Amino acid sequence: MANDDTNKGEFALIDLIRRRAAASDAVPVGIGDDCAVLDAPGGPVVITTDMIIEGVHFEETDPLLEVGWKATCVSFSDIAAMGLRPTALLCAAALPEGFSMQQAEEIFRGINHACTEFGVALVGGDTTSSTGPLSLCTTALGKADGHLKPLLRSGAQEGDTILVTGSLGGSILGKHLTFRPRVDEAVALNDSFDVHAMIDISDGLAADLTHIIEESNLGAIIEADKIPTADAAHELARHTGKTPLQHALSDGEDFELLFTMHPDAAARLLKQPAFEVPVSAIGRIIDAGLFIELDGQRRPLEPKGYEHFK
Amino acid sequence: MANDDTNKGEFALIDLIRRRAAASDAVPVGIGDDCAVLDAPGGPVVITTDMIIEGVHFEETDPLLEVGWKATCVSFSDIAAMGLRPTALLCAAALPEGFSMQQAEEIFRGINHACTEFGVALVGGDTTSSTGPLSLCTTALGKADGHLKPLLRSGAQEGDTILVTGSLGGSILGKHLTFRPRVDEAVALNDSFDVHAMIDISDGLAADLTHIIEESNLGAIIEADKIPTADAAHELARHTGKTPLQHALSDGEDFELLFTMHPDAAARLLKQPAFEVPVSAIGRIIDAGLFIELDGQRRPLEPKGYEHFK
Repeated sequence: MANDDTNKGEFALIDLIRRRAAASDAVPVGIGDDCAVLDAPGGPVVITTDMIIEGVHFEETDPLLEVGWKATCVSFSDIAAMGLRPTALLCAAALPEGFSMQQAEEIFRGINHACTEFGVALVGGDTTSSTGPLSLCTTALGKADGHLKPLLRSGAQEGDTILVTGSLGGSILGKHLTFRPRVDEAVALNDSFDVHAMIDISDGLAADLTHIIEESNLGAIIEADKIPTADAAHELARHTGKTPLQHALSDGEDFELLFTMHPDAAARLLKQPAFEVPVSAIGRIIDAGLFIELDGQRRPLEPKGYEHFK
Repeated sequence: MANDDTNKGEFALIDLIRRRAAASDAVPVGIGDDCAVLDAPGGPVVITTDMIIEGVHFEETDPLLEVGWKATCVSFSDIAAMGLRPTALLCAAALPEGFSMQQAEEIFRGINHACTEFGVALVGGDTTSSTGPLSLCTTALGKADGHLKPLLRSGAQEGDTILVTGSLGGSILGKHLTFRPRVDEAVALNDSFDVHAMIDISDGLAADLTHIIEESNLGAIIEADKIPTADAAHELARHTGKTPLQHALSDGEDFELLFTMHPDAAARLLKQPAFEVPVSAIGRIIDAGLFIELDGQRRPLEPKGYEHFK
């Protein structure tokens, strides 16, 4: 549940909704986080919806099994970003003219694989024909069982260490279709650590860190040499004329977790990792602004990151 | 949450999901009703998702205010079909290239108008650009407060009277964009009458009645001269060469309620209407088959209705 910044100049309907739709007693967290949070007698329910479209989020030549997986895991990643586990999924599909049974089966297999992998019930859907490209809209629900509370973007505190799972950049080379949403890692973090703010990296490190500091009314500084650049970022950089760092800062759809916690908690996590996926401390929350330290110099960082390095 | 039968030969991904996705303890009603029903500590939660697409469910020339209204009310109608009231909405939008701020505003106004009208919180969304036509995917949640239980398609009993709200046919002339989902009427019925089965008419009277009898493992017979044909059905018939009855039987997107109850309850409802929208008794549930009585003759009725009258 996020704006897609793939195409610049795109108008974001969500911003309209955000400005006008007020939170209410039953909806403590409305528009503007990875999920909406709904109050329910058994504890908060989180919910998110995401649409992916051929030609924008995947190509006609991509394996449909992976397209189904991606559609599902994009929503699971939003639930993970709240520190919770997805429980139920709905999927609406718009199938282009001439779409075959076999093709639809492949998509379904991808959706089903993801649901099975994360123990999620596939509870509903809608199918329609389309005059346009293949489109899949997934809606995932998650529940805050027991003592777990939804983690918001807005909870960062000054002095927090900024951490990220995995490595970043170049997801267009494949990871954007086959990534594993960090559900187990997010729940482990929420369960064992006092995480202050969390988001999944869908728009890119710089953009998603901007979401955290904007929602928290704070700033951030990150250290360039601490940012874990993916092999794919290096590979892509050989063709784009950008640096691996630029890709790590600005590429979207890595679906890693970006989160902040007290430096003591961060030190504890780094010393005794709670899971196998690597975690890197990349910077700290400050009172205002967004900066990057590169070659001993501190300079402003734009949400689009790479624009400063062109 | 239903298959769209607008285009014949369309493959229905939902059928795949239905065959393979099992209901579970936490999901007493999965695929195959108007909504999925999720068990929750405070009572069942129902949820539905629907996608509407330019060129299939509306035309480029349709007012965007009405397109936003339709996208929202299609999902509200699914919640109403469970005899419940919608409480929260999410909307994902795929905007075609060149879409303007003003156009997006119009859609939002339509969505917001429907939410305000029915007291629903707009809690989340997603916006993406698209290489294809305008697409809107809405997900609505509803809650079964107090003593109300979700009404299913599968509850029809032999001997039940079949009833329908409003009038049917010709919705393509305008009602499909501006219809008022029968939320208040559905809740009043669920609250004051022992409704056995209910569905909203999205695929057409014959097709949706087929859904009820298939899910209930029963049959139905309807009386042609009892079917309330809309003025639009008569108007459309002047151009199509079909009869108004054919349109009332087979046209989709009237979003009226089709429901069954014991004949005594039906008589009570017809004698003392619970709301202003007219209700008609159009037939009864039998043990098997689907028939229509027309000009004193009983003949089989296909789910596509009109095909027998061509």
